[in-house]
Amino acid sequence: MARERLRVTLSGATGETGAEIANAILDLSDTFHLTALARPASANKPEYENFKKRGASIIVADLGTVNDHLVSILKGCDIVVCAITLEGLDPRPMNNLATAAQHAGVKRFIPSLFGPVCPPRGVALIRDLKEDMIDHIKNLNLPYTLVDVGWWYQMSLPAVPSGRLDHLLVFPITTITGSGNVECAMTDKRDIGRYVARIIADPQTLNRSVFLYNEIWTQNKLFDLVERLSGETIPRQHETQEDLKLKIDSAKKRWNDGDETALAPFVMMAYYYTLWIRGDNTPAKARGLGYLIANDMYPDIKSTSLEDYVNGLLDGDIGRIYVGRR
Amino acid sequence: MARERLRVTLSGATGETGAEIANAILDLSDTFHLTALARPASANKPEYENFKKRGASIIVADLGTVNDHLVSILKGCDIVVCAITLEGLDPRPMNNLATAAQHAGVKRFIPSLFGPVCPPRGVALIRDLKEDMIDHIKNLNLPYTLVDVGWWYQMSLPAVPSGRLDHLLVFPITTITGSGNVECAMTDKRDIGRYVARIIADPQTLNRSVFLYNEIWTQNKLFDLVERLSGETIPRQHETQEDLKLKIDSAKKRWNDGDETALAPFVMMAYYYTLWIRGDNTPAKARGLGYLIANDMYPDIKSTSLEDYVNGLLDGDIGRIYVGRR
Repeated sequence: MARERLRVTLSGATGETGAEIANAILDLSDTFHLTALARPASANKPEYENFKKRGASIIVADLGTVNDHLVSILKGCDIVVCAITLEGLDPRPMNNLATAAQHAGVKRFIPSLFGPVCPPRGVALIRDLKEDMIDHIKNLNLPYTLVDVGWWYQMSLPAVPSGRLDHLLVFPITTITGSGNVECAMTDKRDIGRYVARIIADPQTLNRSVFLYNEIWTQNKLFDLVERLSGETIPRQHETQEDLKLKIDSAKKRWNDGDETALAPFVMMAYYYTLWIRGDNTPAKARGLGYLIANDMYPDIKSTSLEDYVNGLLDGDIGRIYVGRR
Repeated sequence: MARERLRVTLSGATGETGAEIANAILDLSDTFHLTALARPASANKPEYENFKKRGASIIVADLGTVNDHLVSILKGCDIVVCAITLEGLDPRPMNNLATAAQHAGVKRFIPSLFGPVCPPRGVALIRDLKEDMIDHIKNLNLPYTLVDVGWWYQMSLPAVPSGRLDHLLVFPITTITGSGNVECAMTDKRDIGRYVARIIADPQTLNRSVFLYNEIWTQNKLFDLVERLSGETIPRQHETQEDLKLKIDSAKKRWNDGDETALAPFVMMAYYYTLWIRGDNTPAKARGLGYLIANDMYPDIKSTSLEDYVNGLLDGDIGRIYVGRR
């Protein structure tokens, strides 16, 4: 008799990270059955129809409260993966999903971290909020695995002067933060799903933090690489630590004063501070925070090198993120 | 050539937990060299003279700031163990010691947890403050081991009607919290040191949480045991969860209103809530929070049973805590 498949419920399946996880889980249909939770407002997205064709169940669910319907959906589910973004910094949808998972007796909950390694509290706002959500999970005695990932290739590349990458880069990097010599673990967003599919089914990772990444780069080396592969010279502006600090403080103040438009730059600049000034996002720092390293555990997973990724962009084989194209 | 001994610096060596750790480390003089940090105000305590005779170095140190003297003391030290209490809820002495340890390049820092298993934040005030201190350590990228321990036998026993245990019990338990059937991991305070000496020298415990305990008991079974061994019948009053909640809220309110005398009962009742109502303090819950279990790792350590401890009290072989007598 065949072993029963693991029942995975995924929230946020149409997001950038969630879609990678959904695809990887659907590719392993002998191991997993996927249920994707759709918000009422987004139940008609074509992505869900596509997941359904590949064997997923789609259920419309409201994460606005801990409701009986939500609990009943999660009953019998082995693993709940939450890949929703912290929209409006509101932790309640994820906290409600965790609480419902606990009521339903779910065996493992994966909260929506999927970010860089960063010490808890006081360094980057988004991390602080995520730590509060981790505390909520621990308070529930809900079994968990915490997954963080290298900074995306997709968020790290400079444009080139000819403009031929402009339509592919959502966040072109125009300025090198600090010296440009700080090491940072990076990942191709498209590789996250395959690691996550291994991590969530692995008994070793229960109640542990796991970090996955592809390669370690500095900003200077990354600019060198794009120059070499494109044959173009990229202007290099550096922003000092002090300037970045001042901008962070200013954005934070504006945001505290009620200017909602200051939130996104505040969040992003705080990330740049931890990534490129403090150098928190490395496997060594992850080990220091008690993480397991997925690359050590699953050496058979072949991930994309930054060089291959940049070549793919230059050759037109790889598209833009945030447009539903992979 | 003999392997160099591990250099351990201990702060809080004359406290209840600290003295157990100091004694265990001094007993292993082939493995460790101990330096005890004494506060200026308590440098003349006879305990320090005793530690010195057994081979410890005693250094007077001020934890009021991160000062050069403190950093210089910690230079070359392998392990710093902090066993100071959260006096006046002030985290600064421990945070200063951690910061100085980071400046000095200390290889492992053990903060002053040594309490029961409890989820982070929102359950027990002291745990919340300790979590903030853990965040500080992680923020420093300081290598650490977090050690928590079963609830002390020494804090858990009821008095007996004849009064013959009264002089030995600092906190006689007069009321059973809730049903009395909730399981709780317990430890003899005198066994903590030997476990800690193993944990701090073990590469497996680096950047991990470790829980140690002796036995699992419920309050009802514990009362049964004392009755059986003493031959006396102990009156059993139960306090309901609701009553305890009301008392906690009232003490918290008085404390928030500036009544310092409300702090101690607030802290203790919050502990009773997590221990005897929520049932957080068990090895299973510890595993759920990612802890290693010391009992699994060092099965050769023989620890004292609660039965032997109670017999020792009844026979007069074991003394009172908080009087410098072990």
